[in-house]
Amino acid sequence: MLDGSNLKVNLERIKTDILTLAEIGQSSEDRGIYRMAFTDADMQAKQWLSQRITDAGLHYSSDGALNLSAELRGSTDQPRVLVGSHIDTVPCAGALDGTLGVIVGLECLRRMHEAGIEPQRTLELIAFSDEEGRFGGMFGSQSFAGMINPERLATMKDLDGVLLQDELRRHGHDPFAALEAARAPDSIACYLELHIEQGPVLDRSHIPIGIVDEITGLFTWSVWLRGEANHAGTTPMEMRNDAFMGLADFAHEVPRVLEENGSDRSRATIGKVQILPGAANTVPGLVEFSLDVRDTSEGVLEELSSAFRKALSAIARRRHLMFEFEQKSFITPVACDTNVVEALIKQTQQLGLDYQTMPSGAAHDAQIMGGIVPIGMIFVPSKNGQSHSPAEWTAWSDIEAGANVMLQTLRYLSQC
Amino acid sequence: MLDGSNLKVNLERIKTDILTLAEIGQSSEDRGIYRMAFTDADMQAKQWLSQRITDAGLHYSSDGALNLSAELRGSTDQPRVLVGSHIDTVPCAGALDGTLGVIVGLECLRRMHEAGIEPQRTLELIAFSDEEGRFGGMFGSQSFAGMINPERLATMKDLDGVLLQDELRRHGHDPFAALEAARAPDSIACYLELHIEQGPVLDRSHIPIGIVDEITGLFTWSVWLRGEANHAGTTPMEMRNDAFMGLADFAHEVPRVLEENGSDRSRATIGKVQILPGAANTVPGLVEFSLDVRDTSEGVLEELSSAFRKALSAIARRRHLMFEFEQKSFITPVACDTNVVEALIKQTQQLGLDYQTMPSGAAHDAQIMGGIVPIGMIFVPSKNGQSHSPAEWTAWSDIEAGANVMLQTLRYLSQC
Repeated sequence: MLDGSNLKVNLERIKTDILTLAEIGQSSEDRGIYRMAFTDADMQAKQWLSQRITDAGLHYSSDGALNLSAELRGSTDQPRVLVGSHIDTVPCAGALDGTLGVIVGLECLRRMHEAGIEPQRTLELIAFSDEEGRFGGMFGSQSFAGMINPERLATMKDLDGVLLQDELRRHGHDPFAALEAARAPDSIACYLELHIEQGPVLDRSHIPIGIVDEITGLFTWSVWLRGEANHAGTTPMEMRNDAFMGLADFAHEVPRVLEENGSDRSRATIGKVQILPGAANTVPGLVEFSLDVRDTSEGVLEELSSAFRKALSAIARRRHLMFEFEQKSFITPVACDTNVVEALIKQTQQLGLDYQTMPSGAAHDAQIMGGIVPIGMIFVPSKNGQSHSPAEWTAWSDIEAGANVMLQTLRYLSQC
Repeated sequence: MLDGSNLKVNLERIKTDILTLAEIGQSSEDRGIYRMAFTDADMQAKQWLSQRITDAGLHYSSDGALNLSAELRGSTDQPRVLVGSHIDTVPCAGALDGTLGVIVGLECLRRMHEAGIEPQRTLELIAFSDEEGRFGGMFGSQSFAGMINPERLATMKDLDGVLLQDELRRHGHDPFAALEAARAPDSIACYLELHIEQGPVLDRSHIPIGIVDEITGLFTWSVWLRGEANHAGTTPMEMRNDAFMGLADFAHEVPRVLEENGSDRSRATIGKVQILPGAANTVPGLVEFSLDVRDTSEGVLEELSSAFRKALSAIARRRHLMFEFEQKSFITPVACDTNVVEALIKQTQQLGLDYQTMPSGAAHDAQIMGGIVPIGMIFVPSKNGQSHSPAEWTAWSDIEAGANVMLQTLRYLSQC
């Protein structure tokens, strides 16, 4: 029994932690959780978590980026095994995004600790700061991975113009201490993260466990098509330069471009559209829209970028529109480590659970960590694929299944 | 010479009047004219016009809707010939929309008056109030045509919530006096209006005179397509209910529906689009858009309405979207009177001017007047089709040509 291969998580304790944490920053009006990074609610949640770590008899610490850690010390100095996620939220969030991964990680360490298991490698839970992006996103994991510099620390601000450095000082912290949060990659064996899927795939196929093999990269464009605004009544159809019709053409090219140049993991979305002047009786003179394109292969992303550019350019020529675009963001895809994926599959199979390998379509702290150390991710089903809303939920039985896969995988990886 | 068949307008006087009136309500910042109905600028313009009428030795009067009239009294009691338009403007207007028709009408009457011509029928210039719609549009001509009721007078308000009745009282007028503005249709032989085309047709074909044969009717819909908002990264393409893609499909059905069910005078415009939630990384869950459809035949409008409904309904089924629409407005098409059109053509030919018959795609006071009396309209070219902007312009030579057609047609119609 001391090897822990039959050890199971305590679901009741996970429930209690999740429901308790859900109350911190919860609005009584819309039931949404408002625990944006470094708000008072987020700081209160950090305080609560540090207490839970200490109560569990684990070693608590925090770093200059206000990432919180719990350690279950190993018997050797071999590179450690990390498990983590985040407890900050988007505005009007649900109870599980990020939080579930932190609470499951905490439960795994305290379960092993109370069972008297001493791993060979130190196990460390880490709750990263500002994953959701009040100040840009992935602040904690980027600091941990050494990707932060003094200029960014001095200038990062939220949508209301509040500077990160002021907000950290308000809580009594030195903002430039985040530069001290960088860890040596060779001190880390791997990073694991359990997260809700935030998509419909597992829920629709009734499979409790997703084992992530790749995290998609993405590029986002702002695109402008400029025609001529004209009176809807007095301008004959053949004399129009209707900018919106250019966008409609482009929307119809999206499936073709994906079929011709994409993979079955490609996604492309036009999510934001603005039409000017935007009056019912005026032919649109200008459209501005967003294009969000994702794939797990950087090569495929390049192919898609080139194909979308060609499509836009041809439409602009055909419709006599001016065409401009600006790349707003680019994130490189990250592959999960094959050894970690194999370990996750093996433990899932030993637990007799159904699983499927799948990509992660959303960005997570694991994506940043994947830049410096081997990573792996477990997904649990999101009811109706919903997330970033109070409707976000996962069956307790699926949470238990995912947590046991994490517990057994951490146990396994910390002993080899 | 006393029959007036060689009489010509005084272009310099037209220029002076247009440029003087353009200064009333003009912004020094954007050069746009802000003479929205019953604002101080509009009241000042009405004051200016009444003085110009009196100065010309014409009989001035105004009615309960604050429509201003100038009369050149005829020698008989036969039904009178009206000429008119409006001097109120949209915000940031040009100098000619409406104003040109009023100034040309004034010039025609004063030219005949100073030439000592006494028509058989009384000629009356009328400058209608609020054509542009600060309080809904066509207020003056609707009052004139007896289409206003006490409830509308009590409730009409502008976009800032200002009640029409309060605004009229502020200027010392009884708002319910508009009910007294209705004229007996049998006192009127016909109504003529000269207006800038506000479209590109005459300008592109270098023809100075458009003779309107039909004024288009229109219907405007608000349409909602409801799908499901989902994460752009985690939702596979085949699991989406993307509301925007439904709109893109519909935009592509527009040319087909026009080709199959419309006439060469049909127009359909998607001018306003709102997408919710409207984030780059979210599949659109809801689109709301406007559809503006115009034709000169009520039968064609009905065909188009039915075809657009079928197209939307089929798209909604195919894309698994919910579909709703609401008709926001319906305006019946109006045919110009064949005798008036013939008279306009005859006088244009006698002046040796190029012309073309054409529909009016925009609504004008003539559309309201067409509901009670025979009407006719003259269009002059709009440079680049531009209107409702300080860029709105017409060559002085085209203005002179149009004004002379109006002068000769008024002379002709008032003598038969």
